[in-house]
Amino acid sequence: MAGDSDKRGGIDLGGTKIQAVVVDRGGEVAGQEKLPTPTDGGPEDVAEQLVAALRGAADDAGLDAGSLERVGIGSPGDVDAATGTVSAARNLPGWEDSFNLGGHVRDAVGIPVAIGNDVDVAVRAEVELGAAREHRSALGVWWGTGVGGGVVIDRGLWHGRGAAGEIGHMVVKRDGAHCPCGRRGCMEAYAGRKAMEKRAREEHDKGRHTHLFKLMHHHGRDRLTSGIWERALDHGDELAEELLDRAVEALGTGVASACNLLDPEVVILGGGLGDRLGSRYAEAIQAEMGEHLFTDQDPPAFAVSELGDLGGAIGATLLGAGDEEGSP
Amino acid sequence: MAGDSDKRGGIDLGGTKIQAVVVDRGGEVAGQEKLPTPTDGGPEDVAEQLVAALRGAADDAGLDAGSLERVGIGSPGDVDAATGTVSAARNLPGWEDSFNLGGHVRDAVGIPVAIGNDVDVAVRAEVELGAAREHRSALGVWWGTGVGGGVVIDRGLWHGRGAAGEIGHMVVKRDGAHCPCGRRGCMEAYAGRKAMEKRAREEHDKGRHTHLFKLMHHHGRDRLTSGIWERALDHGDELAEELLDRAVEALGTGVASACNLLDPEVVILGGGLGDRLGSRYAEAIQAEMGEHLFTDQDPPAFAVSELGDLGGAIGATLLGAGDEEGSP
Repeated sequence: MAGDSDKRGGIDLGGTKIQAVVVDRGGEVAGQEKLPTPTDGGPEDVAEQLVAALRGAADDAGLDAGSLERVGIGSPGDVDAATGTVSAARNLPGWEDSFNLGGHVRDAVGIPVAIGNDVDVAVRAEVELGAAREHRSALGVWWGTGVGGGVVIDRGLWHGRGAAGEIGHMVVKRDGAHCPCGRRGCMEAYAGRKAMEKRAREEHDKGRHTHLFKLMHHHGRDRLTSGIWERALDHGDELAEELLDRAVEALGTGVASACNLLDPEVVILGGGLGDRLGSRYAEAIQAEMGEHLFTDQDPPAFAVSELGDLGGAIGATLLGAGDEEGSP
Repeated sequence: MAGDSDKRGGIDLGGTKIQAVVVDRGGEVAGQEKLPTPTDGGPEDVAEQLVAALRGAADDAGLDAGSLERVGIGSPGDVDAATGTVSAARNLPGWEDSFNLGGHVRDAVGIPVAIGNDVDVAVRAEVELGAAREHRSALGVWWGTGVGGGVVIDRGLWHGRGAAGEIGHMVVKRDGAHCPCGRRGCMEAYAGRKAMEKRAREEHDKGRHTHLFKLMHHHGRDRLTSGIWERALDHGDELAEELLDRAVEALGTGVASACNLLDPEVVILGGGLGDRLGSRYAEAIQAEMGEHLFTDQDPPAFAVSELGDLGGAIGATLLGAGDEEGSP
């Protein structure tokens, strides 16, 4: 029965995978489940996969999902925390319009649902429990399918009029590469995994040698996941190296621009690619930032997310605690 | 005698001119004086000109500068409000190192001096008395010799670790034009008046026709002031138009990038060029922003500074009121 357990669920809805966790009252992870994000169908199919992931995590913790106290969801797109609706989640299949994701999961599982922006949720987890817990201000850079951002001012997330943190759509090169968002020259047009895969396919189609797509098929994937990029690097794949160097240049440039405006105490790198490759590229990103940083003699601290892969889902368990904006 | 009068002074130290005002207790301007910023010499010469401007404004108000309650100074460079020291004011002559500007003016005039960052001071004036007085958050874009910025969060200026607001050094084009700051591709490399003048001279030296330098000499100037740029536009000068269009492209791109990160309620355009040409170019800047704005369907409000030319000096009179950071 709903509320029986003192455990809470959290789900991180990503462009590639859905990560669910169940945590106990102390925040320790008691169960987890990871499922791929559907690549076709529509919002209902994604919502069903969310429910399946939550049930899997509850099962892993030895209980029924319906007995959880509540579940939080970190979602991409425009999230309306009050209604549970998600709109224009363009990295998810068939999700141009609005869909009541919160309501769907609540009805399917029968427990209270709180919903928040995926990057906000993950950055908040780093502020509460991870790499930013000693800092007053931070810039979260979530490097994955897209590049999201979280602006932390006086330990709180700054939302502006509701759309703050779109660091991936800061321009790094006027009239530059086409971005999945339809604009040009955005940081994400170079550094987002979706844009990188498009570029890799174009180069591959032009006859350029690469292990990327062989590795993808070999590992039963239908897209270039962060793990595939990592494997390609380990194989010394030149195209993968080149595209990641290009991504790092754009990241360093855009993050330095953001720091010139905000001058935060710490930059935290997370997201699928950030968790996987952040340590490997931390030095290169900071070197690139140094080219453009106004405070290059006294740069902000730089950290890879401490909660890693589970950070978004753990952050989602913090939603709906009562007084914050994610509560329904 | 110091403190005799209930009137306060304010001085805005710009790259081109020094504007001083004297205001009464209600904030009304009782006297003003404008003098050119010295183009050679060093910090002492600039400080002497500040004192002369203040004496002129006091005279205009019918009193002696030494009888003012206090004076506030808005200065470029790295300002240490606690000690009155200004360092690395690179748009001023011979000012690479530190100089105690506050102390110099205090000793010369014999009244208390408070000092703050020039753009902060001007943006604060717009928040208290001008275009942002109805808004909780704002982005100030101070378009002049350089391009400065002010980030307003919950009606307060956000300083980060002390260096926030450097919007002019947000990158708009990786590997782009050389900026006076020594880096490449900064917004200021295209939009700052210093960079624009350098480019105009290069084009002129290459034989390109322009009225810019003729107008400059005709009006007895030794640099391309905002007024000279305006006159050249009024003459239909093609090079001036071209360089201003280029500046507007960079401004729109950089400001949109900043808005994608912060999503402020309002963008306020000020500074020497902003005051002079802001209304003329407001539509073009907003159109350019629209190309890159994530919230292009619901853009932030856009306003030209309401206090205009005197805003920086009026803002400086607010310094040292007791509880804020500008007090010595």
